[in-house]
Amino acid sequence: MPEKKLPFTCEQLERMANTYPTPFHVYDERGIRENARRLNAAFAWNPGFKEYFAVKACPNPYLMKILREEGFGMDCSSLPELLLAERVGVTGEGIMFTSNDTPEEEFIKAKALGAVINLDDLTHIPFLEKCTGLPALVCFRYNPGPLKGGNAIIGHPEQAKYGFTREQLFEGYRMLKQKGVTRFGLHTMVASNELNPQYFIDTAELLFGLAVEVSQELGITFEFVNIGGGIGIPYTPEQAAVDVERVSEGVRKAYETRVLAGHPPLKLYMECGRMVTGPYGYLVSRVRHIKKTYKAYAGLDACMTNLMRPALYGAYHHITVPAKAGQPCGTLYDVTGSLCENNDKFAIDRPLPELASGDLVVIHDTGAHGHAMGFQYNGKLRSAELLLREDGTVVPIRRAETVEDYFATLDFSALPTFT
Amino acid sequence: MPEKKLPFTCEQLERMANTYPTPFHVYDERGIRENARRLNAAFAWNPGFKEYFAVKACPNPYLMKILREEGFGMDCSSLPELLLAERVGVTGEGIMFTSNDTPEEEFIKAKALGAVINLDDLTHIPFLEKCTGLPALVCFRYNPGPLKGGNAIIGHPEQAKYGFTREQLFEGYRMLKQKGVTRFGLHTMVASNELNPQYFIDTAELLFGLAVEVSQELGITFEFVNIGGGIGIPYTPEQAAVDVERVSEGVRKAYETRVLAGHPPLKLYMECGRMVTGPYGYLVSRVRHIKKTYKAYAGLDACMTNLMRPALYGAYHHITVPAKAGQPCGTLYDVTGSLCENNDKFAIDRPLPELASGDLVVIHDTGAHGHAMGFQYNGKLRSAELLLREDGTVVPIRRAETVEDYFATLDFSALPTFT
Repeated sequence: MPEKKLPFTCEQLERMANTYPTPFHVYDERGIRENARRLNAAFAWNPGFKEYFAVKACPNPYLMKILREEGFGMDCSSLPELLLAERVGVTGEGIMFTSNDTPEEEFIKAKALGAVINLDDLTHIPFLEKCTGLPALVCFRYNPGPLKGGNAIIGHPEQAKYGFTREQLFEGYRMLKQKGVTRFGLHTMVASNELNPQYFIDTAELLFGLAVEVSQELGITFEFVNIGGGIGIPYTPEQAAVDVERVSEGVRKAYETRVLAGHPPLKLYMECGRMVTGPYGYLVSRVRHIKKTYKAYAGLDACMTNLMRPALYGAYHHITVPAKAGQPCGTLYDVTGSLCENNDKFAIDRPLPELASGDLVVIHDTGAHGHAMGFQYNGKLRSAELLLREDGTVVPIRRAETVEDYFATLDFSALPTFT
Repeated sequence: MPEKKLPFTCEQLERMANTYPTPFHVYDERGIRENARRLNAAFAWNPGFKEYFAVKACPNPYLMKILREEGFGMDCSSLPELLLAERVGVTGEGIMFTSNDTPEEEFIKAKALGAVINLDDLTHIPFLEKCTGLPALVCFRYNPGPLKGGNAIIGHPEQAKYGFTREQLFEGYRMLKQKGVTRFGLHTMVASNELNPQYFIDTAELLFGLAVEVSQELGITFEFVNIGGGIGIPYTPEQAAVDVERVSEGVRKAYETRVLAGHPPLKLYMECGRMVTGPYGYLVSRVRHIKKTYKAYAGLDACMTNLMRPALYGAYHHITVPAKAGQPCGTLYDVTGSLCENNDKFAIDRPLPELASGDLVVIHDTGAHGHAMGFQYNGKLRSAELLLREDGTVVPIRRAETVEDYFATLDFSALPTFT
């Protein structure tokens, strides 16, 4: 099996693991920045292009600040995410607030921050108006329903809870216009972890066509179209990354065909999360126990609390044992965590070098939907996050949880007299 | 569809929801106590019978204290769970410590508490000995492999990471005897959420036979057999609860046949979690928005953060709308949360009365693997837990998380100078 590259040497890894207790996530700043620049360069043909990082993928303010420096905005979906963006210094239209089943306080905060508010439903127009008044700029999330095939991860759009139908879009923009809204956006998000570039080109074409149609029918002008995120990453060594230049080229052609003839220039927005940080995060863990029963098990000091994807989705994450690089992968291991859930396995029947207690293993592609999805089930605690700076130094950007964190919402003071 | 009962009236529910902000979990003390007493009574034929509550199912110290009062021990699987048991005043052999891929510090704490230590692997004998010395009493977890069929939830035992093979059991007890251990236990756990009573009877029979066999071959005497947990609960209104008296009767017959002829009396242990608290917990939530696109959606103020089972497993949880009891269930709703995950749905196509914003809904059977499994993905916060006392009063037993909890592991102080 081909190997996947690491941004640190085996010696650097040993040093990190001797300084910071395992398990931890470590993110590669250089990789994140280079990738961000490549995305921006690919879409430079569109003067207003902006990628809004999907904060949910990796809600760490230090990574968010790096992305802000690279010109990214922040795609937030909840009050805590809005507050995080604010603390990172991203406000105004640097934030896109896309939520569903939204509570009042989130609309109020988003409006106060001057965020671009993306509404999920027709009924949210009067709701937002009542909560905090309509802003000058409003975006709608379109759900193409049976018009778009969906993908394997996100399912069929007509089964999805998100967005407006086509008819509701026309009705909604008409309503906005009547209520004095002057600036308009259109958004959709119909894929997750998709590796086919054509998918994104088709989505852009669909949205461009729809924006022009709405514009002409209602006499409004769109300011931007947000084609969503969903660009996948190559989890297995055999998969190839999505060629963003090819996506860009296809989107540009669709833009020239569909938009330029019938509408003033549109800004193009995206809201990728996974492809922005996913490949640049690594979960570092030590082998705790080797166990041999009906199968061979390598038990790690990490567990699904630190990375849920293999347990939840059976997702593949590549595993490297840097100190044993080049040794034959002659043993099939189930690589397990310590949760009392049999699906707490990072890999099943994975060929690896002969492992021993204390070996450092690196689990790849944990930079998105990794730490962010962790739970505390079984009393397990979430790990620290570190950043490998461009100069090779390592800095902590989130501490590990402690038992005190686990107990934080409990008031033990009434317990002695409780009967 | 038949209705499921609630332990509170519609007026009591309104009062609770006006006092404590929704969403919250509320547990029914009377139900928990009556159920605990019924289990103890069913197995009273066995003088040493003890149920060790699987703390992971609902790690709330107030509920644990109630169960302690009913004579239950605590089944712990991690350091935080051991510490919780200690704070509730459960120590010594009131704790059974069953873990896998166990770190040193957990064995040290378990030994210090005098807990019954249940080892998951042959290699854990020297590991435990080196960490903290072997206690006088040691238990092994048996994995029957292909000898036992497993069940739909937990899968086939030979694919499970847990426990000793049969050969390893003999080797392990021999090793313990040589090392001076004098007291022995035997454990297995091969099912989860199983509703067939015969499954537990068969498991007991298997373990009784094995204990006698090991005893006779090695000249050791067992003190207890722990047949594990895994007793399911009726999530749908059509399902029936496991008849614990029938399980007890079958286990008693197996005990009389298999044990009494060839071995001194054995104490019988169990470690149920779900059936102890599951049916006595209710997630109370308000409808936030009604949305109609390709389908009808009732968006709640709860989300999968408060109850993961429907999103994770497609699990059924019954939903009651007490204020609209008796009204025709004429609308099919997807009952959704606000996470940006399309599987954040408590129910799909569920017939319910016509709902409106503000309606209180009760989601049943959330007393186990409910709050305990919540995550903070999307910046969502876990809800409070309340206890409905036997006298009808309601007391908070866990506060809801705040944004400060969400930020607790972040140090923002370095952020302004971070570039």
